[in-house]
Amino acid sequence: MTARSWVPVPKGSDFPLQNLPYGAFSADGGSPRIGVAIGDHMLDLAAALGDPVFARPRLNEFLSRGRRHWTAVRARITDLLTDPAQKAAARPSLIPRDAVRLHLPVDVADYVDFYASEHHASNVGRILRPGGDPLNPNWRHLPVGYHGRSGTVVVSGTEIVRPRGQRRPADGQPPAFGPTTRLDIEAEVGFVVGTPSALGERVTPAAFADHVFGVVLVNDWSARDIQAWEYVPLGPFLGKSFATSVSPWVVPLDALAAARFQPPPREPEPLPYLRDNGAWGLDLRLEVSWNGFVVSRPPFAEMYWTPAQQLAHLTVGGAALRTGDLFASGTVSGPRRDECGSFLELTWNGTEPLRLPDGTERTFLEDGDTITIRATAPGDSGVRIGFGEVTGTIRPAR
Amino acid sequence: MTARSWVPVPKGSDFPLQNLPYGAFSADGGSPRIGVAIGDHMLDLAAALGDPVFARPRLNEFLSRGRRHWTAVRARITDLLTDPAQKAAARPSLIPRDAVRLHLPVDVADYVDFYASEHHASNVGRILRPGGDPLNPNWRHLPVGYHGRSGTVVVSGTEIVRPRGQRRPADGQPPAFGPTTRLDIEAEVGFVVGTPSALGERVTPAAFADHVFGVVLVNDWSARDIQAWEYVPLGPFLGKSFATSVSPWVVPLDALAAARFQPPPREPEPLPYLRDNGAWGLDLRLEVSWNGFVVSRPPFAEMYWTPAQQLAHLTVGGAALRTGDLFASGTVSGPRRDECGSFLELTWNGTEPLRLPDGTERTFLEDGDTITIRATAPGDSGVRIGFGEVTGTIRPAR
Repeated sequence: MTARSWVPVPKGSDFPLQNLPYGAFSADGGSPRIGVAIGDHMLDLAAALGDPVFARPRLNEFLSRGRRHWTAVRARITDLLTDPAQKAAARPSLIPRDAVRLHLPVDVADYVDFYASEHHASNVGRILRPGGDPLNPNWRHLPVGYHGRSGTVVVSGTEIVRPRGQRRPADGQPPAFGPTTRLDIEAEVGFVVGTPSALGERVTPAAFADHVFGVVLVNDWSARDIQAWEYVPLGPFLGKSFATSVSPWVVPLDALAAARFQPPPREPEPLPYLRDNGAWGLDLRLEVSWNGFVVSRPPFAEMYWTPAQQLAHLTVGGAALRTGDLFASGTVSGPRRDECGSFLELTWNGTEPLRLPDGTERTFLEDGDTITIRATAPGDSGVRIGFGEVTGTIRPAR
Repeated sequence: MTARSWVPVPKGSDFPLQNLPYGAFSADGGSPRIGVAIGDHMLDLAAALGDPVFARPRLNEFLSRGRRHWTAVRARITDLLTDPAQKAAARPSLIPRDAVRLHLPVDVADYVDFYASEHHASNVGRILRPGGDPLNPNWRHLPVGYHGRSGTVVVSGTEIVRPRGQRRPADGQPPAFGPTTRLDIEAEVGFVVGTPSALGERVTPAAFADHVFGVVLVNDWSARDIQAWEYVPLGPFLGKSFATSVSPWVVPLDALAAARFQPPPREPEPLPYLRDNGAWGLDLRLEVSWNGFVVSRPPFAEMYWTPAQQLAHLTVGGAALRTGDLFASGTVSGPRRDECGSFLELTWNGTEPLRLPDGTERTFLEDGDTITIRATAPGDSGVRIGFGEVTGTIRPAR
């Protein structure tokens, strides 16, 4: 029998009892503190559990306590929300979610962005290097990744100021300087590290869940013209560092047992340090909306490299992990055009504009555009769980 | 007349009164706290000034107070160390430096590495793309840079474990996995940000000293074979993320007034946002030692892009600065072979081994090798100031 909460959960809610994502919230002008979402409410964990770790403005200290503690706290919250005998005591800790403000849930230590979708990498190859092999020689051997700017990771709802920068000129011409004319999104899934690792120590794919606490949605805003000019030979820099938005909810791995899914076959077989038996493929279904119209439904189940492989690769050279490290999957794209997670792909580098139901055409983003990424996954007991959303509106260059 | 301290300063010391670099130290098993170096001593600032900001284990909180405060504290320390009337009161706060342990001075927020030496970038181009233009088309238009891993920035003296990883194979072959066989250094100069900036706000070259507190030496250890395989198209990742060493001393910009130096002419003229009138060229003279033998003397005065231009570029797209951000210059190389800051250049990609006075030959680093980078600069009153050292010894792969 499906466990039920005494807190009412509306049909179709992202936040049934089987989810319980963590977030940082404030209410009535108070300081940010930690809660979990249940239906249309937020459970104030400092009040409900009496643990001062939840009175902190960010999740980091809780995350540093490790897998056993995370699972025990989740069991305790589930118990609290299902046991009628605890209802009277817990009820004052429930706050209507429309009365709270949500904040960045984690102080991000290092932010790494991967490039783990074969469909996305192939599309980019076909667009930027037509006629050549769509995948670079290293792509099937390792999860390609790079470090992004953790200081510009912002919470959903933060306005995105169109960046200025040097844009790629015609061959041999000097670069133009000004607001980007090719502002894009990247719909991604991010993984939040709780348990650190020592310098020089590697984390195997099997140890993934010992280190990773949970999952957020990520929009890695990208200025394609700035990136195209600057990226040789050291990779993206200003084309990516003006803002990276994350959802306010961290969905615990413990909520994703039913979403585990065999990833596509990997050929050639990865080197031994990357072998994970596909254990952390995840059937997350993303949805990208432009000004309210759904323009894409990227399937995370199609990702070539799993997050367990990404973490194993990240640490194989001895890089230490810190509590609060965030690594993202890279753009999630499926095999179909309407499953792509970037406008670069959705409009084939701007050559095939999207036509929206309101008659608008779009190639890259214009000022005032709002992009919202949502996702769902199978949860326990046959329910569907949701990730909330990561949204942002473009403001003119300053 | 040159001001003199009542603390004796041995001739040739890196740390005359005109320097006063900040560091984090511990003594007698106590907790790390903040001091400045003077001659062979450390002045315990929490004890000497009674400000609890110096009882913290890192400089960040002090750095967040801003330029006016930094300059005022420096004046107060100088006064304390020169006024004979204060000698009796201050003397108990002086600790012999050989009795202290030095720690990482700053919690590093974001770490950015530039590529600002024309000699270095040209050498790399000649080595890796013989026959082509040694500089990429973007190089003279912007300071090329990328984000590194701030979680693996370590203090001088930390042992460097040889990283394992996928190494570049012969064309068409699968990659080999194992310890890097091309372990290298990059002798760099790093700049520590104190005053933050808001998301969406740019920092002009003229505002450099409002934001940057001081200077450290950096050794950006690099695994060339790992980097060569992974870096297309998103830049260096595991080839650089296993360790980046920094000196324990942060030399304040206030100590470098006499070191300011007109950089080489920039042609074409940079875009307006990068124009700095050469105001922050710096005449720092680096020295790289291998197992005690000096192998190179890289001249920082030869750098094409100044740190003020690097900071202006980093923020022009709206990236926020945080207290503790570190950005490094990239490898410092001069026009002569024995002025190069990497073994890649010193041995021309391993084809021309270095011959050391003890009869040894070296291409890339072997286990047990110790690399030490030092630097000096002109200080006020005609003295020479030093930066201490950043040193590290290679340990076998685990």
